[in-house]
Amino acid sequence: MRTLAKDVATSKEKKVTIQGWIHKKRLLGGLNFINVRDRTGLTQVLVEKGEEVEKLRGMQIGSVVEITGTVLKDERAPGGAELHDPEITVLVPVTDEPPIEIDKPISHKSEHLDTLFDPELRPLNLRNLQEQKIFKIRASLTRYIRDFLHKQEFIEIDTPKLLAEATEGGAEVFQLDYFGKTATLAQSPQFYKQIMVGVFERVYEIGHSYRAEPSATTRHITELTMLDIEMGFVKDHDEVLDMVGNMTQYALQQVYAEHADDLKSLNAPELKLPADGKIPRFTIAEIHEMYTKATKTDVTDEKDLTPDEERWISEYARKQLGTDLVYAVRFPLVAGKFYHKMDKEDGTVLWGDLLFRGLEIATVPLRENNYETMLAQMKAAGLDVTHDGFKHYLQAFKYGLPQHGGCGFGIDRLVQKTIGLANVKEATLFPRDINRLAP
Amino acid sequence: MRTLAKDVATSKEKKVTIQGWIHKKRLLGGLNFINVRDRTGLTQVLVEKGEEVEKLRGMQIGSVVEITGTVLKDERAPGGAELHDPEITVLVPVTDEPPIEIDKPISHKSEHLDTLFDPELRPLNLRNLQEQKIFKIRASLTRYIRDFLHKQEFIEIDTPKLLAEATEGGAEVFQLDYFGKTATLAQSPQFYKQIMVGVFERVYEIGHSYRAEPSATTRHITELTMLDIEMGFVKDHDEVLDMVGNMTQYALQQVYAEHADDLKSLNAPELKLPADGKIPRFTIAEIHEMYTKATKTDVTDEKDLTPDEERWISEYARKQLGTDLVYAVRFPLVAGKFYHKMDKEDGTVLWGDLLFRGLEIATVPLRENNYETMLAQMKAAGLDVTHDGFKHYLQAFKYGLPQHGGCGFGIDRLVQKTIGLANVKEATLFPRDINRLAP
Repeated sequence: MRTLAKDVATSKEKKVTIQGWIHKKRLLGGLNFINVRDRTGLTQVLVEKGEEVEKLRGMQIGSVVEITGTVLKDERAPGGAELHDPEITVLVPVTDEPPIEIDKPISHKSEHLDTLFDPELRPLNLRNLQEQKIFKIRASLTRYIRDFLHKQEFIEIDTPKLLAEATEGGAEVFQLDYFGKTATLAQSPQFYKQIMVGVFERVYEIGHSYRAEPSATTRHITELTMLDIEMGFVKDHDEVLDMVGNMTQYALQQVYAEHADDLKSLNAPELKLPADGKIPRFTIAEIHEMYTKATKTDVTDEKDLTPDEERWISEYARKQLGTDLVYAVRFPLVAGKFYHKMDKEDGTVLWGDLLFRGLEIATVPLRENNYETMLAQMKAAGLDVTHDGFKHYLQAFKYGLPQHGGCGFGIDRLVQKTIGLANVKEATLFPRDINRLAP
Repeated sequence: MRTLAKDVATSKEKKVTIQGWIHKKRLLGGLNFINVRDRTGLTQVLVEKGEEVEKLRGMQIGSVVEITGTVLKDERAPGGAELHDPEITVLVPVTDEPPIEIDKPISHKSEHLDTLFDPELRPLNLRNLQEQKIFKIRASLTRYIRDFLHKQEFIEIDTPKLLAEATEGGAEVFQLDYFGKTATLAQSPQFYKQIMVGVFERVYEIGHSYRAEPSATTRHITELTMLDIEMGFVKDHDEVLDMVGNMTQYALQQVYAEHADDLKSLNAPELKLPADGKIPRFTIAEIHEMYTKATKTDVTDEKDLTPDEERWISEYARKQLGTDLVYAVRFPLVAGKFYHKMDKEDGTVLWGDLLFRGLEIATVPLRENNYETMLAQMKAAGLDVTHDGFKHYLQAFKYGLPQHGGCGFGIDRLVQKTIGLANVKEATLFPRDINRLAP
């Protein structure tokens, strides 16, 4: 019977058997220690007997072992206990010394990212306990998001990423040969989720999206994980902003509670959420004005927020309003797309960006849902409404779609900013960018 | 305040307001009925007043309406109540008559699949209540699977589908240009999940896999949804078979309980699971022998089961052993791949196929985890162990991987067979095959 590291200290047995990897060893002559890693943490083992010490000599870090030993409570040991008088069985020997020190923190400095993601090092870097925490937190974030959406009666959908040729031109789209036709990789499941509003009202999908952007920034990868949500029968844009805001706060609160120690050891910032549970909203015009006033840099003509402005308003929200989350809403009409709901009187689009600690992590629009208005907006945008790629999409509108809105939410960015990582790639197991197609 | 269809009959208010789509209308002169669909079902509304009847005249199926009316319990009405004396507000008018009758069952006959998946009809076909049930059941199946795996301490991982060039040749692989390099679409996340056994021991992913197979069968699609699981520190192959078996039974039991009515109305077969909770296992040799004896067709030289044999042993298991699930295990060595654990003495591979009602839904292998043996098996298979595509994979073995196994589990097939659909495409919202790249 295997005892996991987390259960050694509280074990009722005097003798336990653990299984795991040799994570660290210190051979000091008479007093020899090894740390054994399993999925729940480390167990320290004191090895004194000659023949057991002998077994350790040729054994490199990574060797898979089974060890039966006597439990001795010791506050100084990881997990609060140590194994003494061990009998060691090597399950899988490792004979080569690993190219990295797995028990030492792996550098995340921007100049070391090539090492962090090196094809031959990445499988080993991930065995480092600090690296593990990032991806445990990632798994928890998506789990709590699903949890929230299920309770709100959203139904998970699963839509194809192989599409017929792009409707809005071929820029930033990956193309491939599909049995003699040209297929593209989906940049978003937006058309499908809107169609599915006509079926289930409330739908979501967590899936991959593809952007052939040749950008080498800290915010871009070519294969993203997006949470796409769409919600029908909404009263107004505020209802959509509230739902996405509530979901984000719920997931963050749960993760900060469950992973408190992990987040602390990763130096994640303290979580600040609005006291009344309502994420503050500022219009783009307001932010432009506030920023221009505060920095003496005139941005009032910009249609979107500059990255500097995103950081500035986030900083303002954290310091003045005590919240890490803030909405920038009502983009100027010129920024709108044919599928947005426009407020022509106000001269704005009913579209919000959710900013988290200085970075846009989600776009949260209300959609145009009237068929005739959609057609007019498409034509105004110079699109061919008879294009094959629009046919299925437009059918959903022609035969009745209620007012709806949703979000495209970057999971990679959410993980990045939750932990406070400098680059979105650090939040991704095996990131893809213009130079990186492996591992 | 909106009342959902499922809550109308039990509403404490005398008057309620519903929102939804006109799903059906019967204008019979004095006595006019409309059925309004929302995400929870139908509400029947009796329309008698002249001005309200007048509103219905131009209103086609699909129109989005808000109706306030008086609740009248009526056993014969869907949901057990009817709305009387309605005030109708049209939220979104539909002026064209839909090309299909949304309230009538949509044909799933093989000769009608082109209609079922027609780009312009699919968004409307899915609004049919029977179609909806398929995809609600699908969402529940994956939810219960995640639920089970989380309780068993599996961590969800998220791995890229864009890979460098394929390691095992270019057949059945989609290729694309990736900033001047050639990328391929992942056929499986197998290498990644094995690497992650070295990190988290127990991992899973539900994601898309791509097969450029030019097959037009009832079992093949080109973009699949696969559940990939991998589990380290297993004692033997049986432990893996048990885990996958327990998960499958759990998900099926939960879904059959939650969706009992839906499954009945879809004519799904009654669920039969082994009384002792243990899915029976037959070796390939045993099944060949049993089948040859029963059918007088000699298949003893086949390395795999033929589709006929899969159906036959499933039929046998259902009739003789009272189970819809059965394992075919221990494939002949010739069927093995370099990553399989071989039992050379027995002349078999420790690999099982999970059959569900006549169809293989999962492959459940034990892996070779010894680095030197792996290298030898790769060389024996004629593979270049220095190929770039193997580098990261082999590192995980070189630096210690415990014995592990897992499964590649076809979610589309699971949904298909749970409901009893003839074709895997019917279990997919927007299927992809050699002829289908839209909608």
